Amino acid sequence: MDSLFRDLPSNAEAAERFEELLTRPGVRIERIVSSGQSTPPGEWMEQPRDEWVLLVAGRAGLTLEGEPPLTLQPGDHLLIPASRRHRVDWTETPTVWLAVHFEGGI
Amino acid sequence: MDSLFRDLPSNAEAAERFEELLTRPGVRIERIVSSGQSTPPGEWMEQPRDEWVLLVAGRAGLTLEGEPPLTLQPGDHLLIPASRRHRVDWTETPTVWLAVHFEGGI
Repeated sequence: MDSLFRDLPSNAEAAERFEELLTRPGVRIERIVSSGQSTPPGEWMEQPRDEWVLLVAGRAGLTLEGEPPLTLQPGDHLLIPASRRHRVDWTETPTVWLAVHFEGGI
Repeated sequence: MDSLFRDLPSNAEAAERFEELLTRPGVRIERIVSSGQSTPPGEWMEQPRDEWVLLVAGRAGLTLEGEPPLTLQPGDHLLIPASRRHRVDWTETPTVWLAVHFEGGI
């Protein structure tokens, strides 16, 4: 047994932390710990596969292109579809995300 | 966007609630809401595939056969391997679990 809340930063760090928790055929579960990071202004992220995210602790602003900005609180989850442009507008310190990456057939 | 904390029971219910959140090839993400349920005394559960569980809210007791009982708090997660006998000894009301079922190749 392990905890998503293990070893969290109390102050902003230089970069987000990405930690793989489990990988199986077609899926990868990852913990992401943010401490104030955001997507640089004017930039978007996109990934070639579906990604499901759950905000576990903290708070964050997330925008999917063409939609109003979202504020995520603990327990909030959503699917970021493959190739859908999105950005993280802001994050609290610390913010803990659970990300499930689907890497199987399209 | 949806929340794992939506529509939680404040009192014990007759049965646990199981809600599928997302399914993709090889994987199924499910919310489970417990309200005091436990595995009947002397019984064990087992499933044919790996299952990864995260306790999101509440508290629960979980035992893997042959190991000491665990108390899960929010943020705690573990893999329940395929065919591994386990039981839920107790749950608070409400307890929210996230379960990721791996249904791909063995």
